[in-house]
Amino acid sequence: MKTALRITREQNFADWYQEVIKEADMAEPSGVRGCMVIKPWGWAAWEHIQARLDAMIKATGHRNCYFPLFIPVELLAKEAAHVEGFAKEMAVVTHHRLVQRGDKLVPDAELESPLVVRPTSETIIGEAMARWIGSYRDLPLKLNQWANVVRWELRPRLFLRTSEFLWQEGHTAHASEAEAREETLTMLGVYRRLVEDDMLIPVIAGEKTPGERFPGAVETHTIEAMMQDGKALQAGTSHFLGTNFAAAAGIKFQDKDGTEKLANTTSWGVSTRLVGALIMTHSDDDGLRLPPRIAPNHVVIVPILRDEASRAAVLESAEALAASLRTQAASGEPVRVEVDLRDDAAANKRWGWIKKGVPVVVELGPRDVAGGTVAFTRRDAIGEKHSLPRDQFVGTVGREIEAYGDVLWRQALDYRAAQTLDGIREFAALAAHFRPEGSGGFVLGKWSGDPGIDAKLGELGLSVRCLPQEQSGTEGKCLVTGLPATLDAVYAKAY
Amino acid sequence: MKTALRITREQNFADWYQEVIKEADMAEPSGVRGCMVIKPWGWAAWEHIQARLDAMIKATGHRNCYFPLFIPVELLAKEAAHVEGFAKEMAVVTHHRLVQRGDKLVPDAELESPLVVRPTSETIIGEAMARWIGSYRDLPLKLNQWANVVRWELRPRLFLRTSEFLWQEGHTAHASEAEAREETLTMLGVYRRLVEDDMLIPVIAGEKTPGERFPGAVETHTIEAMMQDGKALQAGTSHFLGTNFAAAAGIKFQDKDGTEKLANTTSWGVSTRLVGALIMTHSDDDGLRLPPRIAPNHVVIVPILRDEASRAAVLESAEALAASLRTQAASGEPVRVEVDLRDDAAANKRWGWIKKGVPVVVELGPRDVAGGTVAFTRRDAIGEKHSLPRDQFVGTVGREIEAYGDVLWRQALDYRAAQTLDGIREFAALAAHFRPEGSGGFVLGKWSGDPGIDAKLGELGLSVRCLPQEQSGTEGKCLVTGLPATLDAVYAKAY
Repeated sequence: MKTALRITREQNFADWYQEVIKEADMAEPSGVRGCMVIKPWGWAAWEHIQARLDAMIKATGHRNCYFPLFIPVELLAKEAAHVEGFAKEMAVVTHHRLVQRGDKLVPDAELESPLVVRPTSETIIGEAMARWIGSYRDLPLKLNQWANVVRWELRPRLFLRTSEFLWQEGHTAHASEAEAREETLTMLGVYRRLVEDDMLIPVIAGEKTPGERFPGAVETHTIEAMMQDGKALQAGTSHFLGTNFAAAAGIKFQDKDGTEKLANTTSWGVSTRLVGALIMTHSDDDGLRLPPRIAPNHVVIVPILRDEASRAAVLESAEALAASLRTQAASGEPVRVEVDLRDDAAANKRWGWIKKGVPVVVELGPRDVAGGTVAFTRRDAIGEKHSLPRDQFVGTVGREIEAYGDVLWRQALDYRAAQTLDGIREFAALAAHFRPEGSGGFVLGKWSGDPGIDAKLGELGLSVRCLPQEQSGTEGKCLVTGLPATLDAVYAKAY
Repeated sequence: MKTALRITREQNFADWYQEVIKEADMAEPSGVRGCMVIKPWGWAAWEHIQARLDAMIKATGHRNCYFPLFIPVELLAKEAAHVEGFAKEMAVVTHHRLVQRGDKLVPDAELESPLVVRPTSETIIGEAMARWIGSYRDLPLKLNQWANVVRWELRPRLFLRTSEFLWQEGHTAHASEAEAREETLTMLGVYRRLVEDDMLIPVIAGEKTPGERFPGAVETHTIEAMMQDGKALQAGTSHFLGTNFAAAAGIKFQDKDGTEKLANTTSWGVSTRLVGALIMTHSDDDGLRLPPRIAPNHVVIVPILRDEASRAAVLESAEALAASLRTQAASGEPVRVEVDLRDDAAANKRWGWIKKGVPVVVELGPRDVAGGTVAFTRRDAIGEKHSLPRDQFVGTVGREIEAYGDVLWRQALDYRAAQTLDGIREFAALAAHFRPEGSGGFVLGKWSGDPGIDAKLGELGLSVRCLPQEQSGTEGKCLVTGLPATLDAVYAKAY
C-alpha cells in the first residue's frame, strides 16, 4: 500500500523518524552545531505537554522560579561526582565582548573566571537553598523551573539529543530522608501520569542501577518507554540525592530538637526529548499521530471550494461547523478546531494534516453542505472515509477523538507486549537475541548487581534500563553473570 | 506614620525599590555577575504577565516557536548596524569542555569559531526565514518565541537591567512595506493593552528618534511609562526593520507578478523589565501593590488561631470562605484565594501579605466565625479595617478587587499628570528644570530632529523618550535648538 511518507519504519527507522518530523514540520537542525529550531507545530505539542505537567507540578505543592543560565566554574566543582559526570560536555563562556580585528569579530574582555552554561542546576540552586534555609520551618522547600540547558552533543538527533534542550527541573529540600524519598517517587508518579495518561505512552517505572545513576545521586528512578524499533527511551528521571549536594553546598537547618542537620534533597526533570518519544511511539508510515491531549487541533476542516458559486456557502458552513464542534468536549477539554483557509488544493491540505497527526480531518464540499452531512477520516484509519449527518457528527466527535486515543494507547501496549521477552535465562542467549543490527525489544531477567555487569552489557550495546517497581520477589540466576539473584530487571538497547 | 518598609520612596527611591523586592520576596542578585534569581512570588507575577500576553500574541495570528540560544559570530556580523549596537555586551562561548588542571577546572576543546549567547534573535531567525520563504504564499510569516537573552551588564539592577533576562521576541516577515508597518503598530497596540489594561500602568505610545532606534531598524516604536520618581521607563518596543535584515539574511520571495523581492520584517519584545515597571509604578512605602490581573492571589485569608478550642472551627470556616470566594469573579477571572496555614503569628502573616501586595487580606478569628462576619483590609488603604456580613463580603469581593484596581490606575494617572510639564519653551529652562540630583518627570515640547540634539540632552542626563502618536500639529520652536519645529516630543530622564 502506498504511504504518505517516502520512507517506512521497516525500511530505515532512523530516516523515517527524520521524515516524520520534516513532513509534520515540527523541527529542523540549525546552523549552530547540535542545536535545533523547534518549529510552530513541534512547539505547540511541547506547549501542551508543558501546560499539563506544569499544572501537576503546582498541584503537588511546588512553586516555579528561575535561576541564572550561567554557573561559575568554582560552584560546579563543589560536588565531585557531579562535575565528573558533566564536565565533558559543557559550553564555556570565557569573554563578554566581541571586537572587530580586520574583517573578523573576535572575543575580547576575558572573564576572570569562566562560566558554564548550565547543564543542570543542582549546584546553583543548592547554593541559594543554603542561603534560604535556616530552620525546619523553612522545609520542605519545593521549587521548579522551566529552562534551557546545554550539554554539548557531537552526534545530535532532533528532540532526542541536542546540545541545547528545554526542560523543567524540580529541586526540593526536606528535613527527613523519608520525606525526600517520598518526594522522589511522587514526582516519578507525576511523570508516569503525564506520559501514560496524557501522551498515551506506556512506561515501566523503576530504579536505575548504580552505573546509570545521575552523577551525585544516591538513587535515580526512571520511567522507560519502548519505541517502535524496540529500543528503550528514558522518558523522565527523578533523583534522590540524599545529603550529597546538601553537604557540598551547605544546605543545613536547625531541627526541632535544636541540632543542626543537613537537608535531604531531590531533583527531577523531563525535557523536549518527550516530543521525540511521542513521535517514535505513535507515528506510522503516513506520518505523525498526536494523542488528543497533546494535539494542537483535534479536528481540521478542509473546505472543498469547487467553484465561485458555492465558495461562500461552503466557507460559511465550515465556520459554523467549527463553532458547533468547539462547544463539544473530548477527555474533559473543549474540542480544538481549525478551518484550513490556505490557498492550496484540498487533497494537499488533507494529506498535510494527516502527516501532522491531527486526530480527525473533515472535508466539507458543496454536496455535504447541501445534504447536511460531514465526511471525515480518523487518523488511526485514514483509508476509511465516514459520512454522518451533521448533528450526529457534532454530537459524537468527542467520543471519536477519545476512541482514537484508545487505539493509540492499545497499539502502543500491544507493540510493547509483542517486543518483550521473558524467556531468556542465559547470557549466551541474551547475546544471540540482541544482534548488532537489530533492536530486540525488552528482555526481562534477573540482575545480581555485580560490578562487571555494565561493561559486559556494553559490549552488546545493551544496558539495564531499570529494576521495575513491581518486583516478583522470586529467586533465579542473573542474566549476565549466572549468579543467584532475586531482582527483576529490564534489559534493552536504548536511545 | 509608621510604614512597613524601612525605607520610603522619599528617602531614597533606589534603595526603596530594592527593599520592596526583598520584603515581597520577589528576586535577589545571584553569585553570577549581573544575573538574578527570580523567586516564586516574582515569578508568579511574570507568569501572569506571560499568560495574558501570550494569548494576545496568538489571537493576532502569531505562532510560537524556539530558536537556538547560540548565534555563530559570522551570522551576527551580517547586519553591520546591528552588530555595532550589540557587540559590546555579549557572552562569548569559546570552548565546549572543562578539564581538571591541578586543583582547577579550565576550559578545553576550543571551538573553531566562537558562539555568542543571543542578545536578540533577528540574525538567527532571519537565516531561517530566508530558507522557509519562497513565494508570496509563505507570507506573512508571524513568529514569536519566549526565551532568555544575555547582554552583559556592568551595573545590574534587579528586573531593570540584568545580564540575563527573559522576554518574548516576535519576528515577522511581510510581502509589503505597508503590511509590515501595520504589524509594527498592531503589536505596539498589544503591548499598550497589556501594560495599561492588565498591569494598570499608563503609557505614552510613540516613535523613537533616530538616535534611540534599535540597531538596524528603520523605525522603533515604544511605550513609555513614568515611574514614581518621575523617570521614564521604556516598557516595550516594536521595530519596523524595512528590508535591512532581509537584505543581510537573504529573505526573498517570488511575488504574484513573478519578480523576486525582499521581504519587509518586524521585531518586537517585552521582558522581565515589566516586573520592575510594575513595582516602581504601584508600590508604596508599605511594599508591593499588585494589579488584580497580575496578582497570584486576590485574597489571602489569615486564620487567627487563639486557642485549641476554636482552632478547628476557624480553619474549617476559612476553607469554606475560600471555596465561596473562588466561585466569584473579578475582571472576568475567577477570584484567586489562598488560606495561609503557615506556622507564624497572624500579625506577621498579615504584614507579610501587605508587603507582597495582595489586593485583599482577610483576618478570620473565632469571633468572626461566631458572628458570621469577615474582617478585611484592601491594599490601597491598609489603615481602614472593614467588617461585613459573610454573604455580603462574598457577593461584593469581585467589586472590591476591581475598585482597588481602579485606585491603582487612577493614582498612576494622577501622578503622571502632576509630573508632566508643558510650559517650558527654552533650553535654559529645560536645563534648570532637570537638576542633576532630581528626576523632573516628563516635559512636553517641540523637537526639530537636528543631529546635535542627543548629545546636548545627554549632558543633562536626558533623552527624547518618544514622539507621541497623538501629535498636535502646531508649530513652535525646538526645546533644544530653538529652531522651528512641529513635532511634539516627550523629554525625560530614563531607566
